[in-house]
Order: sequence, then structure tokens, then C-alpha cells
Amino acid sequence: MEQKNCVFIATSLDGYIADKNGGLDWLYSIPNPDHLDMGYVDFTSKIDALVMGRVTFETVLGFDVEWPYQKPVFVLSNSLEAIPDSHKDKAFLVNGDLNEILEQIHQKGHHRLYIDGGGTIQSFLKQDLIDEIIISTIPILLGGGYPLFSDLPNALEFEFVGSRVYLNQVVQNHFRRKKT
Amino acid sequence: MEQKNCVFIATSLDGYIADKNGGLDWLYSIPNPDHLDMGYVDFTSKIDALVMGRVTFETVLGFDVEWPYQKPVFVLSNSLEAIPDSHKDKAFLVNGDLNEILEQIHQKGHHRLYIDGGGTIQSFLKQDLIDEIIISTIPILLGGGYPLFSDLPNALEFEFVGSRVYLNQVVQNHFRRKKT
Repeated sequence: MEQKNCVFIATSLDGYIADKNGGLDWLYSIPNPDHLDMGYVDFTSKIDALVMGRVTFETVLGFDVEWPYQKPVFVLSNSLEAIPDSHKDKAFLVNGDLNEILEQIHQKGHHRLYIDGGGTIQSFLKQDLIDEIIISTIPILLGGGYPLFSDLPNALEFEFVGSRVYLNQVVQNHFRRKKT
Repeated sequence: MEQKNCVFIATSLDGYIADKNGGLDWLYSIPNPDHLDMGYVDFTSKIDALVMGRVTFETVLGFDVEWPYQKPVFVLSNSLEAIPDSHKDKAFLVNGDLNEILEQIHQKGHHRLYIDGGGTIQSFLKQDLIDEIIISTIPILLGGGYPLFSDLPNALEFEFVGSRVYLNQVVQNHFRRKKT
């Protein structure tokens, strides 16, 4: 079965995923009266599981909403000791080498993975383990914050797959790692 | 007459305008056998003059090509003492406060300005003096280099104007500063 690691994320025009104070309000600066999902439901219908870092996991736990994921969530952390009892059937702690973690997840039958959270995405990219990136650009310059991308040991070439515009304001570009 | 300051530039997917060594080879990584200008000629037909920093000016002077600009070029520099004699009819030294510089340029009859070079664009953005940004994204993660955007004192909202894809690989997005 095809194995792939995908990113589906929104950034500001200057490439931040959270503002200077860690805030996400700017993500909702474009009026969206009909709660358009901008491809999210379609994207998540095509993944088997999520991989995220502890920070993202705890952020989502902290939201005052129902647990938003229908698929298993693998939480990358060397410091978290256990998943809270409330989420033991939904989230699973993993740690160690990313390739070994991926092998464990694949062996459980999850091949198409949604890689989420800035730190986790950056760790995967440093090891050239991201196959697809779908970025929705919110037309705002935040001028600082937490960047999606960070330093890499080597440049990584991608292919442009396609582009869509949502709400007449959010351009979503889809890239795939170029296999050479 | 309408006054506007426009950026027309290419960046990597991770937002760099030059790689770790200042190199630009990656800009030409997408095969372009017919030398498609990707909207550049149309864009420059609608501007009256260019404003760029000393670094960009000297970089262009250093290219082993004909002087590429048909419009007057205003070179922002506090260190350059004079424009070389070879270019005295094409380029003009300006320095000081950006608003005063703009007023001088407007008084000469140049109202639609092409703002070029990373440092110059960043200086203009810090003072909220950019009206339009046209960014062509090359689908490569450079993993380091000279970023297009830098810190800003305040977030700046833009409007998405439109999107085009060139060579099936380069997505060009057009943004306009949102007037509130």
C-alpha cells in the first residue's frame, strides 16, 4: 500500500503558523459564514492516522471542543509520560527515531499519515520524510511568530500539483516531493 | 494620479529570495525553454520607476548582461557616494526618510513604483508602504537563505487578488494591501 506523509496547514503570507503570542485568531480573519472546510474533510478522508507533537496534542486537548479526530493520533514526545485516560483509545504515545516510529505505525496498518504541528513537520522535513504539502495562505503579514519551515541540511525539490482559491481570499497550493 | 508601491518577486516555498550562499540558481530549476517571462513584461509596462537598495543595484551591475531596466532606477543607499558614470542617466541615488524619498520621486512624475530587493522591501513593509505584492513561488524548500519577509511592528492585512500558474510549476499569487 502507498505510504505517504502529508502536511495540511494554513500559514500567513509570511509563513507563520501562529502569531507572536502563539495566537491563531488571524486564521479566522476571512469571513466564512458557511463554515467552508477548505478541503479538510476530503483530505482527512484520505489519511489513516495523524502524527503530531506534544505541544499540538496538548493545545487540541485544551480547546473547549469535542476531540476533533476520527482517526488514531500518534503523539511524538520524549517528555510526556502517558496519554490522559480520557484519550487512551484515541491517542498513542510514540518516541524515538522517526523512521522506527513510522515503521511501527505502518505495521499497525496506517500508511497515509497526516503530519501536524510545526515542530513535528520540521523534524520530518529535516529527514526528508514529507511527501505532500498542502498550504492554505491567509493574506496577512503577521511580521513574526512561529514559522512553518525551519533550517534544513539540504534543499528539497517539490512539484506543484494544483491550486485552489477558497472564500475568494485563501489560496491553497498543493506540492508533492519530487522523486529523482 | 494613482500612487502605488509594488513588489514583483520570486521566492522559494519556504520564503527565501536567495539561498544560503546568496545564490539564485534555484530560480532557474524549472525548465523554461521558451523563456516565458511569467508576467514580468506586463508588470513592468505598468510601472514608472524602480526603487532598489545598493546591494540589488550592485548585484545587477555585476551581472554580465545589458542593463535590464527601461525605467529610471532609484537606488536607496546611505553608503554609496555616487552612481557609476556608466549609469548616470539610468540610476539615481536617493537616501533619507522613505516618505521624503517617495515624495521626491512622485514630484519627478513617477507614481507607480516597483520596489525591489529584500532589504528595501522589508524597509517599505516596516512603514506599511507596500500596496501590492506579486509573489511567484518556486516549489523548492531551500532550508535557509535570505528571507523575503522580516519582523514587522504590526500585522498587515492584504487581499487576495488572483493566482496564475506558469510552466505548470510556478504559482504566482497577487495580493493587495487591504484598506480599512
